[in-house]
Amino acid sequence: MNAPEFAHASTSSGKARSTEDWQRSDAAHHLHAFVDQKALNAEGPRVMVRGEGVYLWDNDGKRYIDGMSGLWCTNVGYGRAELVEAAARQMSTLSYYNMFFHTTHPAVIELSERLFALLGDRFSHVVYTNSGSESNEVLIRTVRRFWDVMGQPNKKIMIGRVNGYHGSTVGSASLGGMAFMHEMGDLPIPNITHVDEPYWYANGGDLTPEAFGLQAAQSLERKILELGAENVAAFVAEPFQGAGGMIFPPEGYWPEIERICRKYDVLLCADEVIGGFGRTGEWFAHRHFGFEPDLVSIAKGLTSGYVPMGGLVMSRRIGEALVERGGVYAHGLTYSGHPVAAAVALANLDVLEREQLVARTKEDIGPYLQRALREAFADHPLIGEIQGVGAVGAIQFAKDKSTRERYANEADLTWHSRTEGFERGAIVRSTNGRLIVAPPLVIDHAQIDALIGTMRDAVEATWRHIQSAG
Amino acid sequence: MNAPEFAHASTSSGKARSTEDWQRSDAAHHLHAFVDQKALNAEGPRVMVRGEGVYLWDNDGKRYIDGMSGLWCTNVGYGRAELVEAAARQMSTLSYYNMFFHTTHPAVIELSERLFALLGDRFSHVVYTNSGSESNEVLIRTVRRFWDVMGQPNKKIMIGRVNGYHGSTVGSASLGGMAFMHEMGDLPIPNITHVDEPYWYANGGDLTPEAFGLQAAQSLERKILELGAENVAAFVAEPFQGAGGMIFPPEGYWPEIERICRKYDVLLCADEVIGGFGRTGEWFAHRHFGFEPDLVSIAKGLTSGYVPMGGLVMSRRIGEALVERGGVYAHGLTYSGHPVAAAVALANLDVLEREQLVARTKEDIGPYLQRALREAFADHPLIGEIQGVGAVGAIQFAKDKSTRERYANEADLTWHSRTEGFERGAIVRSTNGRLIVAPPLVIDHAQIDALIGTMRDAVEATWRHIQSAG
Repeated sequence: MNAPEFAHASTSSGKARSTEDWQRSDAAHHLHAFVDQKALNAEGPRVMVRGEGVYLWDNDGKRYIDGMSGLWCTNVGYGRAELVEAAARQMSTLSYYNMFFHTTHPAVIELSERLFALLGDRFSHVVYTNSGSESNEVLIRTVRRFWDVMGQPNKKIMIGRVNGYHGSTVGSASLGGMAFMHEMGDLPIPNITHVDEPYWYANGGDLTPEAFGLQAAQSLERKILELGAENVAAFVAEPFQGAGGMIFPPEGYWPEIERICRKYDVLLCADEVIGGFGRTGEWFAHRHFGFEPDLVSIAKGLTSGYVPMGGLVMSRRIGEALVERGGVYAHGLTYSGHPVAAAVALANLDVLEREQLVARTKEDIGPYLQRALREAFADHPLIGEIQGVGAVGAIQFAKDKSTRERYANEADLTWHSRTEGFERGAIVRSTNGRLIVAPPLVIDHAQIDALIGTMRDAVEATWRHIQSAG
Repeated sequence: MNAPEFAHASTSSGKARSTEDWQRSDAAHHLHAFVDQKALNAEGPRVMVRGEGVYLWDNDGKRYIDGMSGLWCTNVGYGRAELVEAAARQMSTLSYYNMFFHTTHPAVIELSERLFALLGDRFSHVVYTNSGSESNEVLIRTVRRFWDVMGQPNKKIMIGRVNGYHGSTVGSASLGGMAFMHEMGDLPIPNITHVDEPYWYANGGDLTPEAFGLQAAQSLERKILELGAENVAAFVAEPFQGAGGMIFPPEGYWPEIERICRKYDVLLCADEVIGGFGRTGEWFAHRHFGFEPDLVSIAKGLTSGYVPMGGLVMSRRIGEALVERGGVYAHGLTYSGHPVAAAVALANLDVLEREQLVARTKEDIGPYLQRALREAFADHPLIGEIQGVGAVGAIQFAKDKSTRERYANEADLTWHSRTEGFERGAIVRSTNGRLIVAPPLVIDHAQIDALIGTMRDAVEATWRHIQSAG
């Protein structure tokens, strides 16, 4: 608890307001994401007023260590002057221009030069968006256009995975495999279907992780054969699942997926919205897993969340086909390649490169975080599995570690731990029976110790809660 | 032609680059919006490097007066220090936080207070997005959720209009009625259909505009009766069509639409992405036309395009039903209510209010622009109709003004005028056989004279081109 000077944020009119006042006004107007708003209004949301490095402060001056990088996005941490200056400079110079009117601008060109230098020669073209959801919307329309242009218009079915997450718009939520999201609006849309997720702990039965991983991958091959390869356009997946519980697939899964996609000429699409820009200790998560996608969705870490920006990156095969044979590309977003977003992305890449944050994640912070997680939880009676690499990790709650039996109320239990963490000043996330962490890449050893220590205290509190509840 | 000091924008590394160099790099990586990229690569896009007020400069130092407000968004003009300062201040303080983790922040709360003060008591709740496309994606999912919550799950068909535009994602492009967009990806998705547009000049036949407007509105009633009102969830339309050609409906159209929606309890959704924030001389275009929507999609003018932001505004009936009876709202975007976007929107609203730009548009700039357009084109042999109000106007190309016959190659002709305008330093847009203008609301009389004068020269050049082509 420090920094009382940040309590009661000044409004634009210079008045301080109480937390209760902010909450009352918030309740009057907002539908928050993925919550029961009536319950949240009764509880009152935390009012965050300031961020710096890996820390946030709320309106009462309480400090939090941010174990979730905002929402998997603030890879370079909060309040970086370099990004602020880049935004202000670009906004003063050219606050906006479009790519509709046979026009372009330097910031977006420079960003693409940097991006393709990082991505490598396999990739050639990009359409910028404002979010991961939009990146996957563009993906859907682009995949179908590609196969039209290639003279295979029947290749239009896209395959996602159960418990995959690709966004919250109609198309992206359809690609995702979240049943509770599909209920809100009759999703998925036609020509999207789903195969097994490689979630060994929940679904692996008596198989070894490796055998189960192969089986999960082969659910894709069975689906392709069932639908007919001539009808299947693409497979879309996160290299590791994010919102679904930070699930790392068993070894062997991705090579088998890649083999299957190549065999049937099904485009392999990596949703790198969470995994990109250093999270795993590689610039892109597909490198960590050693596969080569045809399309890559990006967002979040591209700008460290300072300004909304995403994109769909295309392999040379796809980009060049669309340019050479595609005619008019009937798609466009007003803010595609926004100059301020592009300038912030460039400054963000500068920081990542200058401070060698990706290599640091691989060689220093990642191993340190993973070791700390395992030391804290390997022997904990409530934790059945620990997964992760680089600056992302998950702990799986389990009722019986020997049988991998899960608690029926595991969502309540992980939420309990998450709330205990928040109370103690550490932000971790509860999802799908797991607690997950993904701190800014600028975190240091002492901060990791504090984060994981608080996470351990929070899980302990839940363990005591379970035992006292009988 | 001035401002040579802006030629050859400095890159982040401080080097100047030639226009040809920027173009070469742009061609290597970008798929521009709604273009044949191969043709654009051969032509070379204009490289915009700076904006101030109503002017833009390209990399060769050429100045343009921006008659399209970027892309209908820079309502307060380019380079406003107030917005830059607001962005920098917020980005330094809290560069990002989310509305997922039972958290909120002052900037988004203050923005909502301001927004609902402008919108009036009919409206209560908002979900922020990053774009107009996303706003309409949220609209689709929210409409369906609303009727589920109201115990009428069969009310799920949404009705848009032919030649309507609501965005470029799968759902929003489905709501839109652009056939060439539907072709790229098998749109529309199920449960979306379209009725007539109120485009009298093209489709009015022998009817008066008023009679045709009623007929176009009644195509909605016929469709509702055909589908069964118990199956129809919502009607979605732009108060005036934007990308479809800046088409103003005849008087009587909107009252009839409102009557029909109320009669059958079909939600009336106004896409104010283009019309909002002063464009018509009212804060929202539905006020200009005098109807009361249930849902309002916003974007563009909300931030004058300095940072991407949009939103879906809900009437009290809908917002309160979702809060009180909706349970978990299974939707969320990482950057919903982004603090930097919210701070910029607040500063933008400050400028609009302090400089009374909306009233000025209604009382001064709007009438002046509309008069200038009519004086320039009423007697022009190529122009069959002039429409518009406030700071938005369109001129309709016609082959025979007496019969309203249109040129078969009208898209080429309006494109010719648009390019002549660009060459002469004025940006206007060509769409659907019309040239359209929608300058920043800060434009002054002399700048309007220059803009419309150049537009007139451009149309004259096209007229000479037509006559010389025989």
